[in-house]
Amino acid sequence: MSTVVQSFIPVAKDSHFPIQNIPFGVFSTAQQTTPRVGVAIGEQVLDLAVIAKAGLLNGIEGLNDPVAVFDKPALNEFMGLGKPVWRATRLAIQKLLSENEPTLRDNSELQGRALVKQADVTMHLPAQIGDYTDFYCSREHATNVGIMFRGKDNALQPNWLHIPVGYHGRASSLVVSGTDIRRPAGQRITPQNKTSPFFAPSAKLDIELEVGWFVGKGNTLGERIDIADAKDHIFGLVLVNDWSARDIQAWEYVPLGPFLGKNFGTTVSPWIVTLDALEEFMVDGPSQTEPAPLKYLQENKKSAYDIDLEVQIKPNQTSKFEKVALSNLKYMYWSVTQQLAHHTVNGCNMRPGDMCATGTLSGPEKENFGSLLELSWNGTEKVIFKESKQERTFLEDGDEVNLTAYKDSKSGYRIGFGDCHGKILPCLYDNDA
Amino acid sequence: MSTVVQSFIPVAKDSHFPIQNIPFGVFSTAQQTTPRVGVAIGEQVLDLAVIAKAGLLNGIEGLNDPVAVFDKPALNEFMGLGKPVWRATRLAIQKLLSENEPTLRDNSELQGRALVKQADVTMHLPAQIGDYTDFYCSREHATNVGIMFRGKDNALQPNWLHIPVGYHGRASSLVVSGTDIRRPAGQRITPQNKTSPFFAPSAKLDIELEVGWFVGKGNTLGERIDIADAKDHIFGLVLVNDWSARDIQAWEYVPLGPFLGKNFGTTVSPWIVTLDALEEFMVDGPSQTEPAPLKYLQENKKSAYDIDLEVQIKPNQTSKFEKVALSNLKYMYWSVTQQLAHHTVNGCNMRPGDMCATGTLSGPEKENFGSLLELSWNGTEKVIFKESKQERTFLEDGDEVNLTAYKDSKSGYRIGFGDCHGKILPCLYDNDA
Ligand SMILES: [Ca+2]
Ligand SMILES: [Ca+2]
Ligand SMILES: [Mg+2]
Ligand SMILES: [Mg+2]
Ligand code: NI
Repeated sequence: MSTVVQSFIPVAKDSHFPIQNIPFGVFSTAQQTTPRVGVAIGEQVLDLAVIAKAGLLNGIEGLNDPVAVFDKPALNEFMGLGKPVWRATRLAIQKLLSENEPTLRDNSELQGRALVKQADVTMHLPAQIGDYTDFYCSREHATNVGIMFRGKDNALQPNWLHIPVGYHGRASSLVVSGTDIRRPAGQRITPQNKTSPFFAPSAKLDIELEVGWFVGKGNTLGERIDIADAKDHIFGLVLVNDWSARDIQAWEYVPLGPFLGKNFGTTVSPWIVTLDALEEFMVDGPSQTEPAPLKYLQENKKSAYDIDLEVQIKPNQTSKFEKVALSNLKYMYWSVTQQLAHHTVNGCNMRPGDMCATGTLSGPEKENFGSLLELSWNGTEKVIFKESKQERTFLEDGDEVNLTAYKDSKSGYRIGFGDCHGKILPCLYDNDA
Repeated sequence: MSTVVQSFIPVAKDSHFPIQNIPFGVFSTAQQTTPRVGVAIGEQVLDLAVIAKAGLLNGIEGLNDPVAVFDKPALNEFMGLGKPVWRATRLAIQKLLSENEPTLRDNSELQGRALVKQADVTMHLPAQIGDYTDFYCSREHATNVGIMFRGKDNALQPNWLHIPVGYHGRASSLVVSGTDIRRPAGQRITPQNKTSPFFAPSAKLDIELEVGWFVGKGNTLGERIDIADAKDHIFGLVLVNDWSARDIQAWEYVPLGPFLGKNFGTTVSPWIVTLDALEEFMVDGPSQTEPAPLKYLQENKKSAYDIDLEVQIKPNQTSKFEKVALSNLKYMYWSVTQQLAHHTVNGCNMRPGDMCATGTLSGPEKENFGSLLELSWNGTEKVIFKESKQERTFLEDGDEVNLTAYKDSKSGYRIGFGDCHGKILPCLYDNDA
């Protein structure tokens, strides 16, 4: 779309959800508690189950039964239909919502059934997530962690510039934005005694600012997704807060990777922003010449996204979220398409609705760091909150964290991701319990 | 059952599936391709959907709709009902199959519909596995790997005797016994150049002899399963072959653990043997006094199982499986109940149908080693096949692997797991593709 289309639904200038966005999610209401698919527009949700039942999504090639696809508690089936269907459906919705289209605009009875205020809905995880993989694709983050734990000379591991390093996460504990997070307890050690662990609530509870991507169409086990096709397999992006207990992680992770330090909860934002909606923010990513990646990871078009990412924390007993970091998705070294090509190069199968996350997205400056581990340099420096004068190294009980992201287009509208929010509840267990 | 009950269905003396076993699985037939739940008895499958529809599972407390539970392509719903229901159902099936019970014995019409030869069925994964976790709980295996890669003095990592070390595996690539496995390609390095990887088919394709356990009733996110209750949350055991590409794994796994070296396929045996069927094989596990585990991992009753585990390989172009290793589940250091207590101690939620595996189960002697990595000491010694005179370090294309397991009871019947089988297909990709 080269001209700026407007919707007949009012959209504030700073809204994340203008007609140019149309992110997909799953919601329910007090009146109708069965979750179904909707899209966000301004401060409203457009109920696609209602729109489909009204026949307004008929005739889209490949979308043979719109009611069956959208009157569902998850987007998996829609995701599996493939990019041409996603694109045609989104265009049909944009047309339906545009100010010059009378069908819905002039049908107040249908509007009454199809539009719900976002303030009045309960959002759910947008898909049934079969597998969740977490990558480690920010060079700045990997370097910071490397300097902290191995020193400047060996900051990056030997494989890091060759492989989009990743590991399997836990799918069961993925939760939608707004879900409280319980502080975990577990084994940890002290600097004084590095071989005899004790049991206690985590004292280094942290956040990780990440972007998640949902697999649309998958691949068959034993085959792979070529990097040239990878973009067509990605349905869209969300925000992910990969809560992390640094002390539990530090003791457990050798040699098989993070486990209980990560799998107590991972927060996902509810609206999936399609790659089509982000197309105009595509930019060149970091140079990959020293070394050049192996052939299966080489891509010859823009594959990074210029999207500002913000971490906000509301310390307990205060009343306002304060910004603690501002990063950008464009800093990420390995693109989402490289991540997908790598993930499947051994024949690993992806299924519609599988989610991958980028890893903590830090940038070059301290203000761009995407975790308290980095912002407090593993607890050695306080993070100061300017307004409330609070100080933190890691999270306290009652602290609330919000991730948000958006970018303004040249035409003046804003494409955003909404919120990815969670609050820390106290641990249920005492030391040594 | 203290007396040895017999079934009216003939069961050979060496069958894995006497009336004392009654393992649960999911199967379909050419005539009825919709998968449903069955149990194995001798060389037959008893179709529980048919039995439920005939009203023969009515009246079991907690099993309110037997048809809805068993006319399903997965055991998840049954698993979620909890141990009293599993136990009562299994007892009802044993009664129905016993030689003194006329209901099914004397109803040849119902037998015709309810009994199918195992040779004529297609087995499926027994559950929809939401999450798959792989542990690393054999001290002998961890020690062997440690000696190979770090030397004798640092064989066990500092955390190993304190933590049942585990990591998240990939659920999408879990396949049922009989599924061919495609040799993966990926990045690897040479001993001569440890920093510049190349792309090639794996040259160190391996097996891992493991036992899997299925979660029955789960727990709520944020809470934990106490070790005293852990056994009641485990539905039963299967065999797992965790195929592993050692060269891919070696290059990728620092610092976040195994990824593409593991997630190209993991084979699961189709029949879940209940813990009740294994009760009489419970024994004391290895001593855990130096060090004693932390309180949440301490258990005061027998928690190991004396079950022989066998690895058989049929080298390509030969006609017979030959035994290459014989191990035993009783060697395992951390029990399955310790694994579950640890997995949830941080509040991580388990769901019915989630699967965990023990890690490679090696024993003290070379003939007990559960991987070719150990049997060939990382490729430095040939594994010789006595009958076919073949030699292997790692797997060749066309090789077939079978895991099996059983134990004979004092009363003379055998409780077994059946087969966990897979064949290696050649890689689809050339070097540098
Ligand atoms: Ca992460
Ligand atoms: Ca394993
Ligand atoms: Mg997490
Ligand atoms: Mg595997
Ligand atoms: Ni999963």
